[in-house]
Amino acid sequence: MNITHIEHIGIAVKSLNDAIPYYEKVLGLTCYAIEEVAEQKVRTAFFQVGQTKIELLEPTDPEGPIGKFLEKKGEGVHHIAFATPEGVQPALDELAAQGIQLIDKTPRKGAENLNIAFLHPKSTLGVLTELCCK
Amino acid sequence: MNITHIEHIGIAVKSLNDAIPYYEKVLGLTCYAIEEVAEQKVRTAFFQVGQTKIELLEPTDPEGPIGKFLEKKGEGVHHIAFATPEGVQPALDELAAQGIQLIDKTPRKGAENLNIAFLHPKSTLGVLTELCCK
Repeated sequence: MNITHIEHIGIAVKSLNDAIPYYEKVLGLTCYAIEEVAEQKVRTAFFQVGQTKIELLEPTDPEGPIGKFLEKKGEGVHHIAFATPEGVQPALDELAAQGIQLIDKTPRKGAENLNIAFLHPKSTLGVLTELCCK
Repeated sequence: MNITHIEHIGIAVKSLNDAIPYYEKVLGLTCYAIEEVAEQKVRTAFFQVGQTKIELLEPTDPEGPIGKFLEKKGEGVHHIAFATPEGVQPALDELAAQGIQLIDKTPRKGAENLNIAFLHPKSTLGVLTELCCK
């Protein structure tokens, strides 16, 4: 599998309204997009940091995946997304053949219209891992 | 504060011997260094992924910071480190003036001989945050 860089880091926050000023005024980053991903029941805010984006994730429903994550673990890093420019499906096929547990067996559309798929943290040493490709 | 990129992501693992094969054989990355940081009671393994490094952290003592983290939270992302090439101390001074809680008020030496300092996750929306400069 060819991973070129870390596409983004997903961070669960209770409120974008509270979190964006920290990332902008304290860390000096710029929020360049806010996007709702209705299927995932989140509102996201993006910041570019070199090659990598920070994707803040605010739940729009406490029963969605980020709502449940916040209730269980509190605010913090939710997932790491690797760029796999040769495609998500070939990478998933390779991982499945190695016995890696997949959350998504085929890619789906994520924020920024990327093709994405998640690997199960049981197979990735505790790190919820996403693969991304344009 | 000027952050140019994500210098590394620190990931707590129980065993480098178990984790390195996952990062190498499954994700296709290359471990280019293993280093013990005695002061922090960890053994670290580094992988370059584009601009950013993955730093695996294995405790050498269950009473050290990574040993305690693993006991409380299990394996997973431990911290995010931002590159602040204009220096860690000026960044700390700026953050302290904004009321950000610092773990390290002055920089200390971390892995790879970088000057580093940690910010408290209470002030950083749950993300243990490190600043780094050569």
